[in-house]
Amino acid sequence: MDGTVKTEIDLRALGAEKAKAADGKSRSAPTVRATVLGASGYVGRELLTILARHPQAAVARLISSPLDGKQPYPIEQVHPALRGRFAVPCLPLDLERLAGSEVPAAVAASEVDVVFLATPHETSRDIVPILLDSGLRVIDLSGAFRLKDSAAYPRWYGFEHRTLQALAQAVYGLPELGQAAIAQAKLLSNPGCYATSVILALAPLLRSAWVEVAAGIISDSKSGASGAGRTPSGKLHFPEVNENCRAYGIFTHRHVPEMLQALEIGENDFIFTPHLLPITRGILSTVYVRLNARRTRDQVVRLYSQFYAPSPLVRVYEAGALPEIQAVANTQYADLGFALDEGTRRLIVVSALDNLGKGAAGQAVQNMNIMFGLPQELGLV
Amino acid sequence: MDGTVKTEIDLRALGAEKAKAADGKSRSAPTVRATVLGASGYVGRELLTILARHPQAAVARLISSPLDGKQPYPIEQVHPALRGRFAVPCLPLDLERLAGSEVPAAVAASEVDVVFLATPHETSRDIVPILLDSGLRVIDLSGAFRLKDSAAYPRWYGFEHRTLQALAQAVYGLPELGQAAIAQAKLLSNPGCYATSVILALAPLLRSAWVEVAAGIISDSKSGASGAGRTPSGKLHFPEVNENCRAYGIFTHRHVPEMLQALEIGENDFIFTPHLLPITRGILSTVYVRLNARRTRDQVVRLYSQFYAPSPLVRVYEAGALPEIQAVANTQYADLGFALDEGTRRLIVVSALDNLGKGAAGQAVQNMNIMFGLPQELGLV
Amino acid sequence: MDGTVKTEIDLRALGAEKAKAADGKSRSAPTVRATVLGASGYVGRELLTILARHPQAAVARLISSPLDGKQPYPIEQVHPALRGRFAVPCLPLDLERLAGSEVPAAVAASEVDVVFLATPHETSRDIVPILLDSGLRVIDLSGAFRLKDSAAYPRWYGFEHRTLQALAQAVYGLPELGQAAIAQAKLLSNPGCYATSVILALAPLLRSAWVEVAAGIISDSKSGASGAGRTPSGKLHFPEVNENCRAYGIFTHRHVPEMLQALEIGENDFIFTPHLLPITRGILSTVYVRLNARRTRDQVVRLYSQFYAPSPLVRVYEAGALPEIQAVANTQYADLGFALDEGTRRLIVVSALDNLGKGAAGQAVQNMNIMFGLPQELGLV
Amino acid sequence: MDGTVKTEIDLRALGAEKAKAADGKSRSAPTVRATVLGASGYVGRELLTILARHPQAAVARLISSPLDGKQPYPIEQVHPALRGRFAVPCLPLDLERLAGSEVPAAVAASEVDVVFLATPHETSRDIVPILLDSGLRVIDLSGAFRLKDSAAYPRWYGFEHRTLQALAQAVYGLPELGQAAIAQAKLLSNPGCYATSVILALAPLLRSAWVEVAAGIISDSKSGASGAGRTPSGKLHFPEVNENCRAYGIFTHRHVPEMLQALEIGENDFIFTPHLLPITRGILSTVYVRLNARRTRDQVVRLYSQFYAPSPLVRVYEAGALPEIQAVANTQYADLGFALDEGTRRLIVVSALDNLGKGAAGQAVQNMNIMFGLPQELGLV
Repeated sequence: MDGTVKTEIDLRALGAEKAKAADGKSRSAPTVRATVLGASGYVGRELLTILARHPQAAVARLISSPLDGKQPYPIEQVHPALRGRFAVPCLPLDLERLAGSEVPAAVAASEVDVVFLATPHETSRDIVPILLDSGLRVIDLSGAFRLKDSAAYPRWYGFEHRTLQALAQAVYGLPELGQAAIAQAKLLSNPGCYATSVILALAPLLRSAWVEVAAGIISDSKSGASGAGRTPSGKLHFPEVNENCRAYGIFTHRHVPEMLQALEIGENDFIFTPHLLPITRGILSTVYVRLNARRTRDQVVRLYSQFYAPSPLVRVYEAGALPEIQAVANTQYADLGFALDEGTRRLIVVSALDNLGKGAAGQAVQNMNIMFGLPQELGLV
Repeated sequence: MDGTVKTEIDLRALGAEKAKAADGKSRSAPTVRATVLGASGYVGRELLTILARHPQAAVARLISSPLDGKQPYPIEQVHPALRGRFAVPCLPLDLERLAGSEVPAAVAASEVDVVFLATPHETSRDIVPILLDSGLRVIDLSGAFRLKDSAAYPRWYGFEHRTLQALAQAVYGLPELGQAAIAQAKLLSNPGCYATSVILALAPLLRSAWVEVAAGIISDSKSGASGAGRTPSGKLHFPEVNENCRAYGIFTHRHVPEMLQALEIGENDFIFTPHLLPITRGILSTVYVRLNARRTRDQVVRLYSQFYAPSPLVRVYEAGALPEIQAVANTQYADLGFALDEGTRRLIVVSALDNLGKGAAGQAVQNMNIMFGLPQELGLV
Repeated sequence: MDGTVKTEIDLRALGAEKAKAADGKSRSAPTVRATVLGASGYVGRELLTILARHPQAAVARLISSPLDGKQPYPIEQVHPALRGRFAVPCLPLDLERLAGSEVPAAVAASEVDVVFLATPHETSRDIVPILLDSGLRVIDLSGAFRLKDSAAYPRWYGFEHRTLQALAQAVYGLPELGQAAIAQAKLLSNPGCYATSVILALAPLLRSAWVEVAAGIISDSKSGASGAGRTPSGKLHFPEVNENCRAYGIFTHRHVPEMLQALEIGENDFIFTPHLLPITRGILSTVYVRLNARRTRDQVVRLYSQFYAPSPLVRVYEAGALPEIQAVANTQYADLGFALDEGTRRLIVVSALDNLGKGAAGQAVQNMNIMFGLPQELGLV
Repeated sequence: MDGTVKTEIDLRALGAEKAKAADGKSRSAPTVRATVLGASGYVGRELLTILARHPQAAVARLISSPLDGKQPYPIEQVHPALRGRFAVPCLPLDLERLAGSEVPAAVAASEVDVVFLATPHETSRDIVPILLDSGLRVIDLSGAFRLKDSAAYPRWYGFEHRTLQALAQAVYGLPELGQAAIAQAKLLSNPGCYATSVILALAPLLRSAWVEVAAGIISDSKSGASGAGRTPSGKLHFPEVNENCRAYGIFTHRHVPEMLQALEIGENDFIFTPHLLPITRGILSTVYVRLNARRTRDQVVRLYSQFYAPSPLVRVYEAGALPEIQAVANTQYADLGFALDEGTRRLIVVSALDNLGKGAAGQAVQNMNIMFGLPQELGLV
């Protein structure tokens, strides 16, 4: 933190010219300077879009896989919508062919404060320690550092973890569950999109011990296709997704263990059923629980309203209203609403967020804000 | 070829009028002649499309609301895809301004065998008795005759039933649960689309008493927008449905009581949560139950396979495969697949069908086939 | 109402606090305060979204049709995505039942600088003179003041104009064609979405006299459904638009006369063919012209690049690249690219913009920026 | 033809068992027995769907690329919708590793009458001569035999043709332009989807010399994504197509030369601009011509109506009505409508068809019907 603040002060001392970031913004306020590694995916694009508009952040470097050869390329070659938004080109970085020591040099200009990793799990796992060693703060959007128990990785992610020291210092960054650790984090592990959707839906109930957990908790979740990333595949070919809806990954989805970990419930008490929707952005989770005591609709709303009172990016709906995907698509909010059958204590929580927004890039920037002492919602509303 | 040609010649000798149906087909086989009342909606269109291709059925009359004034109009004015498919125009029938006695005359040519009603609930409720009195067999696709208990109508449908005699003789037409009554029916009440989806998913389990019912049964169902009919509304305006998904009608959907009735379970043991998908056709139901004894995946598949062995329109998937909407869209099938956590006895049944196909018009024609002694799948596969 | 106004006045008295607008932003810079009349439509929503993020603008009042009765209502009742974004509710204003003198009082707090009208053509036509008389500056997003020739209204809009004095002082606000008049405008008429798309595609060519006009100019344009507004209709019912594409309004679309007027070409030399796309946002125009002299691809690109050099919201593509709708959807840009068959001088200009962005609300805010001496792209990139 | 009829009689002599085709249909009528090679693509699926319902055709063999290893696999593994429709599995055929002489043995059971090739251009080019040599009739749905001029292949298809003898005997199968050659064809080359759309739109005008050709003819065409096939790619990844529309292949699309060839016009007089729509099925072509003499709307309709009077799969619209994609999606029709500015002789023809239906598989079966003496629309309406 200190170093960062100092850098910011120094930058200001260098005059307006220096304060002008790679995205061409001139700023009067101190600025967090970021490198985005993995700029060419959907999460990368969303990060760039948010940061370009953020009043106190600037994109210093854009880095992604080589496109054709090893030359830097204008970002519009992979993201047409970003044409003209960045003064610097996207630098190609072939991580498999780089020596470890080259990584920090590649990702960091001297004035970089934070590196966002929108990279595959294995890539993040391997380069995070190198970045940490070089003193950079890291926000990792992959799953490589989400699970505290390294032994869980082979089962859920299919690999041995092997960078255990970094894993030990990783902070799981769901700001609505507490910000103290986030503010100090060197390595911030950004939650999964589905996980954010489900944890936000259940945390107030479970932390208040309102749920009859043994009766089972079910999240029937539906996600847009951008959540599956940008790599082409038969399953994500347009005519296969369009006019379709399908369940997948029942009992095996990678986001399950982080839900269990954050909610402190057991695998046998929880079912998570993801479905693919024929839309680009958004997750809707319909979450079923049985309360352990009779409550009114208003009591439920009050519980959530109080729990999320300090959280500007979570919106709690009044009784009778339910969130839908359009309420949150292209925003950084998570919205929560309720249907309760009071007599039988069956409660349905409906949770909506944008998988690229509050489910990924928006939350990453929210974490960045907290890490650098800015208002958590800055640049996000 | 010879036989076919001869039959055609013979038929023509019987009078052009008789041999050539309204849909222009010449037939060698005896033909069920149908009137479709409510031709201009989506279910009406699907009925016409199926019947036009059915080898032993013919559309004698198309009837719907007046379009501009009281003149008959070509069907392509409401269904462009049906241009040129029917020799007769669509007759306008303003049911609110007709005397009861005029109804049978309007819907029946002398040779009509069956009347399909793709009409609003209240319309069906009021004209069915008149049609029955005139000796016509009726297949009603509305909800007006689905519930045996007339007292349930005010709560679920918002009206008093008032045609109780007809209600008493109505046969609920889900052929996979038994065909004897259907074959004899004068008034066939065609199940709701969601109801078909959910009942087919659960009937084998419940009839075999494999379910721990008190643990709760949940159907999280997702439907395309054609299920909501063709009347424009804010909720179904293109930009409101597109790139969206939302839950609605939790604890209050009209199809719930027919599910409870067919499955013989109580309201407190069942949750039905419908969602609107941004697609035109198809329903996917993800159904959650807890088995009351330990079973293997193969046992579950075997149970369903045996239950539906006589049912050509239900397809049971092997363990490890799940149906999706594209497998059934534009077909008349219902597909069923399973995910089972054997240790905890938590079973998820995934059920897919086309809400206009097996969920409405296809099932209506399946019922017609049974009522008229034809193979149940004739014209549907 | 009183309470709100009072609070605002009180806030101003408090100094820094006073700069807090209805949208909750605190500002250090001077702020343009706006009323949005017609807040409940798609253009209204987009205006509110842009203004909420604009660093030097604030929404003072939101006004729209009554929802249920005459009570003010939270904006999320019509725009779920805007939940929590505005401190003031949406005021219902039944324009048909108001006396003219009440209009200014309703739309203007003392500190309002500009009124955006996202209202039907006839509404705009009738209330604009009243607003002007009361000294307010007006940005009208309807077509009521786009055509200089009042005699054209009966043919294209189906009504007599009748507020000719206001029409005479209206400035057609396409900033890329000149900003001097816009800066001074009391009544700014914001161009149509299709018109913006086509005019930007053709202006550099026609103003440079590069086109063989008599050979004919064709714009084959495709638009998302939000361009047709939010009023439900059979044509815009989800299942009618989804999985469909259709041409409409050939030779009769209302945006044609403003294209002819701005481009100074005759009706016989121009064809405009709008099509409806199954998407929510975006227009793609494929424009066909024959050049009147042999030019290279690079010369074409250079012509456009120079023409639009002062225009930060128009992006000109290099030879070989074409814009697509995703490049501009949810942005305020218009993008232009080219395909030229040099030998035959046949040039195809592809123009893309978001019909709600640069095609409506974004351009309206761009005009506001110019009218109030701000950088034209402020709050838009 | 004789041989075919004899085969059919022979088949019947073999008993009921033999007459039962691979698709499980028992038939009283003689049957055309087909092999579908390339069963796993979208065109293959459509062929199978149509043939399964065709009253006088049967699928004898389904062949496609190996799935996992060399074992035959149930067709539902690649086409879930076809589960249970075919008694025989899909045979894997690795054409690159087969000797030429093995091809006929693989594709033909003794009783096969025709082979449909839904294969890549190069595959068709190479195996067609082998199939012809073995006496099989072939319907090729690739572009390998569409262009009479073998020298055109390097430019448009990127390969040398090299099987010139087969090319010389290929019949271009657009039945509405003449059926005599089709009836006799050994090698039927099925037209491209875009080509069918454009040729049907223009043939009546050009064959009647009604067009001022030198003024230029433009087809602005829009297609669903299934037209691009089933191979995953970045351009066809769901989020890249969804909520998008883009032009591509201007001046270079492969279907251009077959349009020029069939319409007998020159490249300099014609522009074809394909666009990708965010839908699965359907093509809409908006075709612009200038008539060479003044005609009325009714004269235009009459010209087309007479031209297509013998063509049951082409539907000509009355003045004032335009086809749209939904009118033809999931049908085998091509629909044509008109907008004419009589004074300036500018005519717009709107042409709609399903790219998998009349644009590919439907037309292939129409050609099969003609080749085997059946009514051309049999099994298609």
